[in-house]
Amino acid sequence: MPEHKTRTKILQCAIQLLGENGAEQFSASKLAAAAGISKATLFHHFRSIDDVPIEAFEVWSNDVLDIDLPATGDLYKALVKLGNHTFDVVDQQRDFLRAYFVLLNKAMFDERLRFKVASSSDRAIETLASGIRRFVESKRAANDLARTVLMQLDGASLHLLALGNEQEVRRTWKLFCRKLTK
Amino acid sequence: MPEHKTRTKILQCAIQLLGENGAEQFSASKLAAAAGISKATLFHHFRSIDDVPIEAFEVWSNDVLDIDLPATGDLYKALVKLGNHTFDVVDQQRDFLRAYFVLLNKAMFDERLRFKVASSSDRAIETLASGIRRFVESKRAANDLARTVLMQLDGASLHLLALGNEQEVRRTWKLFCRKLTK
Repeated sequence: MPEHKTRTKILQCAIQLLGENGAEQFSASKLAAAAGISKATLFHHFRSIDDVPIEAFEVWSNDVLDIDLPATGDLYKALVKLGNHTFDVVDQQRDFLRAYFVLLNKAMFDERLRFKVASSSDRAIETLASGIRRFVESKRAANDLARTVLMQLDGASLHLLALGNEQEVRRTWKLFCRKLTK
Repeated sequence: MPEHKTRTKILQCAIQLLGENGAEQFSASKLAAAAGISKATLFHHFRSIDDVPIEAFEVWSNDVLDIDLPATGDLYKALVKLGNHTFDVVDQQRDFLRAYFVLLNKAMFDERLRFKVASSSDRAIETLASGIRRFVESKRAANDLARTVLMQLDGASLHLLALGNEQEVRRTWKLFCRKLTK
């Protein structure tokens, strides 16, 4: 396999493993086994196993965090759709979403990861804000709304995964969107 | 030390360790050392190290999760105060707050813990909702508002800890409270 393909494979397996079993079960041996490579090859690509989650977060966020606001006639409907889509992803790709929160959790203890998470969160807010600006005049207002939406979306998804209260989360999301756009 | 005091000490040390270094660094040896007991004593109190976080969450939530809404003349001000107080706690007792998210993270992978987290979250919503009812007629509406508030508070606190963006979090919280109470 070409070098860069091996690297990508390692990072994708890392996301899969982190989402499947959490950070506690994550190790160089397990990652090498999952990627079908030797530990020597793994450490040829990454100086330390602690470097893997940092790049893995980047791969994860490139796949997902460009949050496009669905094209609809009003902001309320667009935000409701955004939430429903996110909660569907939580249902259907649970491990993938769990990997996000596992990495956010690691970022609380790892400054390098925190830096990555913060910059990809800024990017996500920017994209979402530019969607919101179709409905809102001021750039600053759109930005602030985008940040509120992302915080609620993260809180709601975390509750969905850690508490398993899907019905309440979906109902609460609609209330949030109604209040936000009134 | 009497048996129940030892047990309480173990659980408090568990919260401290989980918040200080995360779940990955958490082990029976470290917990026994932190509590100043032998591993044999630890396993006299807990059948497995995996049982510890479940009871630790209960201790944590008894200490905190009874969210009393500050007594002020209007709901907007009361909610802003609630957020400011929470963010102050994040600042001043970072490890204690991190322990909460570490345990929430574990709950994504542990059904027994998820059950505990869900029931203490229900209790937190109930307390908060009874505070909100001072301002809102319907019980159902107060309940839904309380859930929205807790989700935003969790999302905001997680962002604060994992992204380190205090200023934005505090500003966004005010916007959220304004929109919610308009």
